[in-house]
Amino acid sequence: MRPSGRQADELRPITITRHYTKHAEGSVLIEFGDTKVLCTASVEERIPPFLRGTGEGWVTAEYGMLPRSTGTRMQRESSKGKQGGRTMEIQRLIGRSLRAAIDLKALGERSITIDCDVIQADGGTRTASITGAYVALHDAVDYLIKTRKLKKNPLHGQVASVSVGIHNGTPVLDLDYAEDSSAETDMNVVMNDAGAYIEIQGTAEGHAFRADELQAMLALASSGVEQLMQKQREALAAS
Amino acid sequence: MRPSGRQADELRPITITRHYTKHAEGSVLIEFGDTKVLCTASVEERIPPFLRGTGEGWVTAEYGMLPRSTGTRMQRESSKGKQGGRTMEIQRLIGRSLRAAIDLKALGERSITIDCDVIQADGGTRTASITGAYVALHDAVDYLIKTRKLKKNPLHGQVASVSVGIHNGTPVLDLDYAEDSSAETDMNVVMNDAGAYIEIQGTAEGHAFRADELQAMLALASSGVEQLMQKQREALAAS
Amino acid sequence: MRPSGRQADELRPITITRHYTKHAEGSVLIEFGDTKVLCTASVEERIPPFLRGTGEGWVTAEYGMLPRSTGTRMQRESSKGKQGGRTMEIQRLIGRSLRAAIDLKALGERSITIDCDVIQADGGTRTASITGAYVALHDAVDYLIKTRKLKKNPLHGQVASVSVGIHNGTPVLDLDYAEDSSAETDMNVVMNDAGAYIEIQGTAEGHAFRADELQAMLALASSGVEQLMQKQREALAAS
Amino acid sequence: MRPSGRQADELRPITITRHYTKHAEGSVLIEFGDTKVLCTASVEERIPPFLRGTGEGWVTAEYGMLPRSTGTRMQRESSKGKQGGRTMEIQRLIGRSLRAAIDLKALGERSITIDCDVIQADGGTRTASITGAYVALHDAVDYLIKTRKLKKNPLHGQVASVSVGIHNGTPVLDLDYAEDSSAETDMNVVMNDAGAYIEIQGTAEGHAFRADELQAMLALASSGVEQLMQKQREALAAS
Amino acid sequence: MRPSGRQADELRPITITRHYTKHAEGSVLIEFGDTKVLCTASVEERIPPFLRGTGEGWVTAEYGMLPRSTGTRMQRESSKGKQGGRTMEIQRLIGRSLRAAIDLKALGERSITIDCDVIQADGGTRTASITGAYVALHDAVDYLIKTRKLKKNPLHGQVASVSVGIHNGTPVLDLDYAEDSSAETDMNVVMNDAGAYIEIQGTAEGHAFRADELQAMLALASSGVEQLMQKQREALAAS
Amino acid sequence: MRPSGRQADELRPITITRHYTKHAEGSVLIEFGDTKVLCTASVEERIPPFLRGTGEGWVTAEYGMLPRSTGTRMQRESSKGKQGGRTMEIQRLIGRSLRAAIDLKALGERSITIDCDVIQADGGTRTASITGAYVALHDAVDYLIKTRKLKKNPLHGQVASVSVGIHNGTPVLDLDYAEDSSAETDMNVVMNDAGAYIEIQGTAEGHAFRADELQAMLALASSGVEQLMQKQREALAAS
Repeated sequence: MRPSGRQADELRPITITRHYTKHAEGSVLIEFGDTKVLCTASVEERIPPFLRGTGEGWVTAEYGMLPRSTGTRMQRESSKGKQGGRTMEIQRLIGRSLRAAIDLKALGERSITIDCDVIQADGGTRTASITGAYVALHDAVDYLIKTRKLKKNPLHGQVASVSVGIHNGTPVLDLDYAEDSSAETDMNVVMNDAGAYIEIQGTAEGHAFRADELQAMLALASSGVEQLMQKQREALAAS
Repeated sequence: MRPSGRQADELRPITITRHYTKHAEGSVLIEFGDTKVLCTASVEERIPPFLRGTGEGWVTAEYGMLPRSTGTRMQRESSKGKQGGRTMEIQRLIGRSLRAAIDLKALGERSITIDCDVIQADGGTRTASITGAYVALHDAVDYLIKTRKLKKNPLHGQVASVSVGIHNGTPVLDLDYAEDSSAETDMNVVMNDAGAYIEIQGTAEGHAFRADELQAMLALASSGVEQLMQKQREALAAS
Repeated sequence: MRPSGRQADELRPITITRHYTKHAEGSVLIEFGDTKVLCTASVEERIPPFLRGTGEGWVTAEYGMLPRSTGTRMQRESSKGKQGGRTMEIQRLIGRSLRAAIDLKALGERSITIDCDVIQADGGTRTASITGAYVALHDAVDYLIKTRKLKKNPLHGQVASVSVGIHNGTPVLDLDYAEDSSAETDMNVVMNDAGAYIEIQGTAEGHAFRADELQAMLALASSGVEQLMQKQREALAAS
Repeated sequence: MRPSGRQADELRPITITRHYTKHAEGSVLIEFGDTKVLCTASVEERIPPFLRGTGEGWVTAEYGMLPRSTGTRMQRESSKGKQGGRTMEIQRLIGRSLRAAIDLKALGERSITIDCDVIQADGGTRTASITGAYVALHDAVDYLIKTRKLKKNPLHGQVASVSVGIHNGTPVLDLDYAEDSSAETDMNVVMNDAGAYIEIQGTAEGHAFRADELQAMLALASSGVEQLMQKQREALAAS
Repeated sequence: MRPSGRQADELRPITITRHYTKHAEGSVLIEFGDTKVLCTASVEERIPPFLRGTGEGWVTAEYGMLPRSTGTRMQRESSKGKQGGRTMEIQRLIGRSLRAAIDLKALGERSITIDCDVIQADGGTRTASITGAYVALHDAVDYLIKTRKLKKNPLHGQVASVSVGIHNGTPVLDLDYAEDSSAETDMNVVMNDAGAYIEIQGTAEGHAFRADELQAMLALASSGVEQLMQKQREALAAS
Repeated sequence: MRPSGRQADELRPITITRHYTKHAEGSVLIEFGDTKVLCTASVEERIPPFLRGTGEGWVTAEYGMLPRSTGTRMQRESSKGKQGGRTMEIQRLIGRSLRAAIDLKALGERSITIDCDVIQADGGTRTASITGAYVALHDAVDYLIKTRKLKKNPLHGQVASVSVGIHNGTPVLDLDYAEDSSAETDMNVVMNDAGAYIEIQGTAEGHAFRADELQAMLALASSGVEQLMQKQREALAAS
């Protein structure tokens, strides 16, 4: 039995709200149950130095948690004077995942920065971030097309992400904080709409996981990502 | 005529939403028109080193803007590695303003940190922060009383804040971004419910302001703060 | 009775020494009683990036305290690795105050940096800094005119600053450290020679101040600034 | 055909040199072909603050690259003033992997820090680091047993790691720099001697990988880790 | 012929002003010609962590230059966020030199921090700093004796420092900026009142210096230090 | 008697291994007994900003210690966020010493960075670094000549360095850690092949050294440097 009463293969209620704030070219509040992340996509007509002269654009991400998005207040990273290792790991993961869905050549010499800021945390903030960030990126690309800065859509795939894990010996989908903090294994899976893998990050700090457990988790992830992509499509279909 | 069509002495629509997130002892979303700030109050059973042995508690504030809360994306302060001068000025102002409303001796050896994070900016983020922070602080104090950590209410005053300025030669109340960026003078006023001043910060980078203009702005601020306090009381009266 | 024996409306002895060091285009030691601040103005033939292409110049300020300018040694900000919030607040205030006295267009594409370094502190370091910085800026502008880099004087006003406060229930002028540390209210006022306000920063961490107290402090400030401007003019009249 | 002429399932020549430097409790130079990493294990009789009072010990890792371990000189992280995201990701991975092999309770209130410093890089520095770090950790534990600081061996598993990837459409084992920089997919796998997974980190920045490719890579990884563990055992068997 | 018209073995005019500021236990303005350094000694009843439990005290130094103490304005180290290599080198040199004159055991568990802040620079700031710092340290020790915190004087030697160099092929004493910037060799010598060496730091960035040049410079240094010690004694003899 | 059993004028066994790693233009492992330093020389076709337009090149050095190169693990400077004073002092010394051997005009608009990384420390890391760095620099210059980027050899001198000190009252050559940590005086001497001095840095934290002791140490240094230069020439003569 899961702490939340959910079935092993059951996602939390998923909500995707577009146009959540007014300034960003894409602005999405995504909720995986009590986990709430604001994902904004900002278009800038400049590129990082290492791309100069290549004709390519760039998509990158930054991640942050509001100090009291968590049960206990965390120190603000700006007052600590640096981003921690976990923050860097997550924002690098989000950036790589999105770049797997877009043709940077077709984007042209501009960059899109996705900011994922956690308003409230209850487990799965990185998978919610990736799933919401895709929708924000989609809106930013639509903005570029509508304003005739782009003629051709550079997105060539849909991306979503979910966590899976072993909890009390059972493979489960979309862990919340209560499960996450006591799980033996935690794996984040990023996939595209062709059912292929973009990222797999599985960690067993307690007990190592066997090959059969890995396969069970991958199957759960696959079904979870499929449902999340349906939610993304519904959100994007609304005006 | 003001860009927004408001009267010179008219506030923007004010909304105060309590219990906006679930972890913090006080959590308030305050909206001054399109300016939206999340103010959370976190109680911690420890005090900063300079207060050890005094028996007193502490109330402090931190302020941040989400990178795309503004028209143009701002660099994240955590990735710059330090908080800028404006951020420090604002969070020191919020902290001083709140400490003017509370008896730190009566609070006991604990601290309350107010985090004011700007979700969307349209002028007046510091005055909205102070006004929302007071409500979050009030909820955190109520939590301490309900959980019997405090017997006596340490709050001895109500605090709110509003901006006033000279725009196109006319004193106006509660400037939005369009006005703020072209105002000749900008003044932030923090007052208590006895009508006395806690902070006055008036700046004339363009043209210096005369004594009569100062008096007109102070009168507007006084009426604005009174209306904001009414909003605070209504929000706190709701369950 | 004030700790120093001064009348409520009496300034400390004011001394302004020009040409205090030999390298800077303007170099002024200003003393407000035991508070001693060295203000140097440095002309540089370059402008910050945000002004490129505008044809405008820039005036900015930096503020520092020698580690043992105070009763207890303070840690050096360079060894802490960052400037504190108070330092940033003060240097931003000095910069804004001086920019209110100069036509940046007429200054041309160059910048003047005013460094205010506190040699000895006894209250009022920021008001002494502004008052001395104006004289250093004046000397730097004179240097530009004498060396024919400027044809027209870009200064269009005179600027001085003084603190006022409520001490033992009485409004007083130009607080020294003994008063400042026990004052109920502290207000710094920056004015120009037309008697108009450039900055007002009033703070009541202890007790809020009433409208009548505000008016009494403003009157004291006005008279104090007038006397300081007279001192500035005398210093500038000397060769 | 692989650039190095190796078979798809062939490791590079592996060398493990123990007692490489004289001060550390464990000191191992590990070579995966031209990739050379010095792994030292340092025992310290203290624990990080978050473990105080738990009776547990700690194992952690730090990772660095000498500035010219790579084809082009990299800026030293100490002169940049911070560790980059990649460094943090890798050292967190090494630390987690080693902690999966040791009973921290049985280690007692002390910590072992593994420093992995890359002397020469040619792809696979993180997998070489983990594989060498295990041997250094083993030597440090032996030192604790020999010096009677520990009675019981806290190691309960053997850990090694290898990279796999898709290069020119073919799954290959232990990628060198020439392959790594042009691989479509790169996956680092950490396993224990029971054949279970401790970490899986697979990334497809270019093309997403299919389920069958994932299975082929996992099979290669399994065989590679088995061979590496044999090398570890041989090295540890030598005096 | 030297740019200043001085003889090869002639010091600049030396002035030592004690009690220059009022807060510090020792406060000395030292002038070597146009080089002016304020040296303050601050007594603190605490010691750095590495000395806890040893019963010893500590003497250390910090060094800074006001931004416009030099011909061209230097960026403030506090705004750069770190102390440069030159600053660190100099303050370590001052600290070592002073510790060579004092019995740290006899000082007891307290520390004296000497701050050397350059008000105006014209070459030789580090030798002026050491020479002035000794006098400030002496005053701080006198304060400890007068206030009965110390019974026995922990100072066991007198310390002074001077620079020597090869300028236009000639060994010269006490280089000013004009000489220093064009000298072939620059050497700073710190000596005690027994005529023995505490520090010798000789640098030849341009042309290496021969053994006979070294001897000539050492002879000049010796005579210069003797004169400086006479100045120190005269200053300390005054009340 | 010296702890190592060496004669007072006896160097430790010296080994110089060229081509130690494969990427750098010069790569030298130098061993002074148990002290082992890897010196790499990296050629880059760019110069620091302050040399732009001068036609000159640049030679600079960076120094680091692996965390467990020493008896007790040192914190990594990259995780501390800054290089310490000792590191800065040493890398500035290495850079100045090398620049004394090369004609920067003849080097042309390029820079050579020497990284000296201590693999194992047993006293004398800075003198070993300078001595090894010269060989690495020589190899990098040879590379520039062989690849026809330089026609003329810009090196005009040979540079080596050794430490001398007073240990148990006796002047000794090339101190190891056991001697260094208990020496009364420690002096590092950098010389060229004409027998002239490039740098002398002598420090007496404990007891000041007399003129006759200084002369004895200089004589030892001279003989030590001569032997080191012989070792450098032998190493460079090998292919």
